[in-house]
Amino acid sequence: MQPHHHDHSHTEAHFEQSDTVRDIVIGMSDGLTVPFALAAGLSSAVTNNGIIITAGLAEIIAGSIAMGLGGFLAGKTEIEHYDSEVKREYREIKEFYEVERKECRDIFAEYGLSHESQEKIVDELSKNDDKWVDFMMKFELGLEKPDINRARQSARNIGLAYIVGGIVPLTAYMFTSTPVNGLMFSSIITIACLATLGYFKSKVTGQSPGKGAFQTTVIGVLAAAAAFGIARLFS
Amino acid sequence: MQPHHHDHSHTEAHFEQSDTVRDIVIGMSDGLTVPFALAAGLSSAVTNNGIIITAGLAEIIAGSIAMGLGGFLAGKTEIEHYDSEVKREYREIKEFYEVERKECRDIFAEYGLSHESQEKIVDELSKNDDKWVDFMMKFELGLEKPDINRARQSARNIGLAYIVGGIVPLTAYMFTSTPVNGLMFSSIITIACLATLGYFKSKVTGQSPGKGAFQTTVIGVLAAAAAFGIARLFS
Repeated sequence: MQPHHHDHSHTEAHFEQSDTVRDIVIGMSDGLTVPFALAAGLSSAVTNNGIIITAGLAEIIAGSIAMGLGGFLAGKTEIEHYDSEVKREYREIKEFYEVERKECRDIFAEYGLSHESQEKIVDELSKNDDKWVDFMMKFELGLEKPDINRARQSARNIGLAYIVGGIVPLTAYMFTSTPVNGLMFSSIITIACLATLGYFKSKVTGQSPGKGAFQTTVIGVLAAAAAFGIARLFS
Repeated sequence: MQPHHHDHSHTEAHFEQSDTVRDIVIGMSDGLTVPFALAAGLSSAVTNNGIIITAGLAEIIAGSIAMGLGGFLAGKTEIEHYDSEVKREYREIKEFYEVERKECRDIFAEYGLSHESQEKIVDELSKNDDKWVDFMMKFELGLEKPDINRARQSARNIGLAYIVGGIVPLTAYMFTSTPVNGLMFSSIITIACLATLGYFKSKVTGQSPGKGAFQTTVIGVLAAAAAFGIARLFS
């Protein structure tokens, strides 16, 4: 294997690591954005920091449960869906043997393989039901077996990252005495954190770090500005 | 084609439709959950509905931007990632021709195909660079070309569904005069909506509707209870 060439084991390790990074980035950037924006909005409507902190903490715990538990249950549903599709596929290769063979040939026909090769592949694949079903799940339906442990980890990572991210903008209101000062310091630290997060996220995923920093920050600023405007309008 | 057997065109139509349904369910269930929980939390801490409505609206607009715009930019990043992987794959089939051939054979070796078939498939595939790269993107890396229009639609659907979902629990505070009454009516209508949403979501995805209704409702109730507890603790 030549240097710098990705091999399978390397690719998989890379994916697992980047899954965790992605979860943390998703949770933390939403946590930085939404409680920050909520607090900014309330700053235009109330005169004491206590209510902003209370609302912020309520949002953080609610958002963390919605993202974490919601994500976990969605992952469980995905597993059930996969399992039911596997059962259906086993049934189909029995009941609709010829149709399944044709569907399998069609996959390769799409890539320009000769009819002879198509036949040969299907003949060999269909010798082993398990491998055939595996193959059709992945290459006909595009479904990979979801991992329950992965779903659990992912839910925990996203939920915790949301809490950590959400605490950041609120700290400014804890250490200042008026919403105006709170908003000022909250904006400074949150924008700094969003830019840093966007920067490193893009470094990890191989995108332009400057662009990543910019995008993550813009979402936060837009959300805060919109929340500020709405709250001022309705208060 | 036998009746009741899924064919490709049917499967794809089904996927597109369920993508939209999934987006709306994701946005609406989060919209029902988080603003509902935030309002419930604030009900334990404030004495007038105005501040709850203001906070709720600020949260809705912030959450909608974070989910919608955030989702859209994530989709765009995914497309850039796909495009850069395509370029890399074109480079690799030139520079590491034999390695790529081996990787391609390995895909089929995993499913028990004979060495002879592996060779034959790779010989035919490698005749056309475009088809070969297409094939390796999907079958080696498991990447499908993401659709920018789909990302845009998805962002809009999720963002709007979040707003629609979020307005529901707040209406109760608009038509009552105290937080206690607001919370009572808000809980009734939100739980009814969450259960209905969970029920139909599960019907569409082929899961047990009762279980779906139960799970969606439990997330909302847990989030609201946690927010209520936190807000009471810190106010």
